[in-house]
Amino acid sequence: MAGFFERLAARCASEKTFLCVGLDPRASSAAEAEALCVSLIDATHDVACCFKPNAAFFEAHGSAGLEALKRVIAKVHAVGGLALLDCKRGDIGATAEAYAKACYDDLGADCVTLSPYLGYDAIAPFVTGPYAGKGCFVLCATSNGSAEEVQSGELRGTVATLCGGAWAAQTAEASRPLGLVVGATKPAAVAAARRANGAAWILAPGVGAQGASASDVVAAALAGNAAPSRASLRLVVPVSRAVANAPDPKAKAAELRDEINAAVECALAKPPAPSIAPHQRAFIDCVLDTGALKFGAFTLKSGRASPYFFNAGKVCDRAGKG
Amino acid sequence: MAGFFERLAARCASEKTFLCVGLDPRASSAAEAEALCVSLIDATHDVACCFKPNAAFFEAHGSAGLEALKRVIAKVHAVGGLALLDCKRGDIGATAEAYAKACYDDLGADCVTLSPYLGYDAIAPFVTGPYAGKGCFVLCATSNGSAEEVQSGELRGTVATLCGGAWAAQTAEASRPLGLVVGATKPAAVAAARRANGAAWILAPGVGAQGASASDVVAAALAGNAAPSRASLRLVVPVSRAVANAPDPKAKAAELRDEINAAVECALAKPPAPSIAPHQRAFIDCVLDTGALKFGAFTLKSGRASPYFFNAGKVCDRAGKG
Repeated sequence: MAGFFERLAARCASEKTFLCVGLDPRASSAAEAEALCVSLIDATHDVACCFKPNAAFFEAHGSAGLEALKRVIAKVHAVGGLALLDCKRGDIGATAEAYAKACYDDLGADCVTLSPYLGYDAIAPFVTGPYAGKGCFVLCATSNGSAEEVQSGELRGTVATLCGGAWAAQTAEASRPLGLVVGATKPAAVAAARRANGAAWILAPGVGAQGASASDVVAAALAGNAAPSRASLRLVVPVSRAVANAPDPKAKAAELRDEINAAVECALAKPPAPSIAPHQRAFIDCVLDTGALKFGAFTLKSGRASPYFFNAGKVCDRAGKG
Repeated sequence: MAGFFERLAARCASEKTFLCVGLDPRASSAAEAEALCVSLIDATHDVACCFKPNAAFFEAHGSAGLEALKRVIAKVHAVGGLALLDCKRGDIGATAEAYAKACYDDLGADCVTLSPYLGYDAIAPFVTGPYAGKGCFVLCATSNGSAEEVQSGELRGTVATLCGGAWAAQTAEASRPLGLVVGATKPAAVAAARRANGAAWILAPGVGAQGASASDVVAAALAGNAAPSRASLRLVVPVSRAVANAPDPKAKAAELRDEINAAVECALAKPPAPSIAPHQRAFIDCVLDTGALKFGAFTLKSGRASPYFFNAGKVCDRAGKG
């Protein structure tokens, strides 16, 4: 049987979609959570490349929630879909093996999200041995408010590089490549992750309710790509609330799928960017990451209008942080 | 009602124990897992300061496992104990709130272990609002083989410092201090965490089956302490397999409790270490961390016997790593 990422790639190609429908049921009971998910799966399965149930919203309902989650994943399979269980597990040894058993054998997931904090010991049990062929997305750069308290650029680079190098080499062939979670609200982080790791699938949450633009994240993923194409994009765009809360979830999902596809066509149609030296690239990333360079409508002290503003002081802050 | 860490401190003092009994039932069914835990709780509750059930070993049995875990935590409470749920959750916003609901409202835990990768957004929902008074231990320095692929000394220092500073300031008073998870097999990491954060309780796994020595970890925690005392030790030593697999778990737990207490008495009886300047301390940590300085029985090239060996090349490696 093909590995998870081969199946995902096949589905993205055959259904012409990079949209993943997130299943985060905010419900007052396990039965209600299940019903919400089942109706969302029925409505959107032909426009989604995969479904991403979030374990927490089921665990909050205790053992009944876990049973509901198991049936939701079975429903995803019943419509021919793939189930990416968003559980962000991160433990080692026999504990990680027990989590893998829970996610795959009990719940039936095809793929999981994982935390990299404990190194490859926390990844291997999910993608080797009995679970060769399952997939994982490893947290790399998240875009929540407090992420950068802990995630330095260096740490994110380390994770992206390990997933493409040393960790991939130790992973069962059918489970390769190892995917990365990179927040869509920071296109610079998406481009940096893609440059550090050309092979990884990138799961980029943040489009929709969190305000990221599908076209920005697509452009960033392709800009970081050595040979941009629809097949090498390897991007999964999960959307939860914006679809679930829409008056017509199917129409909303189709609209998002089309928006992402249009962004891909548009980015691929552009002439290739001029070749940029690594030090120039590092400088551009730095001034964008730190906010030293901003685009918009500015009035300078001189009174002149400018489409950009450069605040060199912010670069110093970044250097000071190491 | 007193917060988790106040209750833990009271129990460590009244029962004169820093031993935490880990509940990692390797069982073929939920019922067997539950029975193993219940018998372990009955045997050891008067020598343990708290119990640490590991969520994975219950989740592996699906919804029945979750029901078993809930009853195991109720059993801990029935014998007057505290339940630290080792679940290493790490997510944000509504997802983290749902996990907190699962851990506290459904399962009944008093405290959880958390991953710091996403910053304070992943901590707050477990220790504020409805859960002020619950406790958490945040992963800081783990001692598994691959930990240092991701956990640089700088990253560990950042987490220890945030938990004592910015994050503590935002946490509900009753949930302070925020605890740290620091592997006992690396005493230098325990001492470093203690120096970076004098207030935190440290959960130091690795004693027993993983080979760490109770006296080394106690000495390290006290050496890093500005005013060493039994009350300021703030150390929890979890032991799972070495107790569970012993022919007489109660006797083994009592032996470990006594060993830890003896190490505390011994470390407190020693004259205070001479005052060491920060650059000297950094040098010592560096040569110990990198393995540049080793103690043992060595025969030097000259043929002379030496109780230590110094390999300066290893320091260069560390510097090169940044």
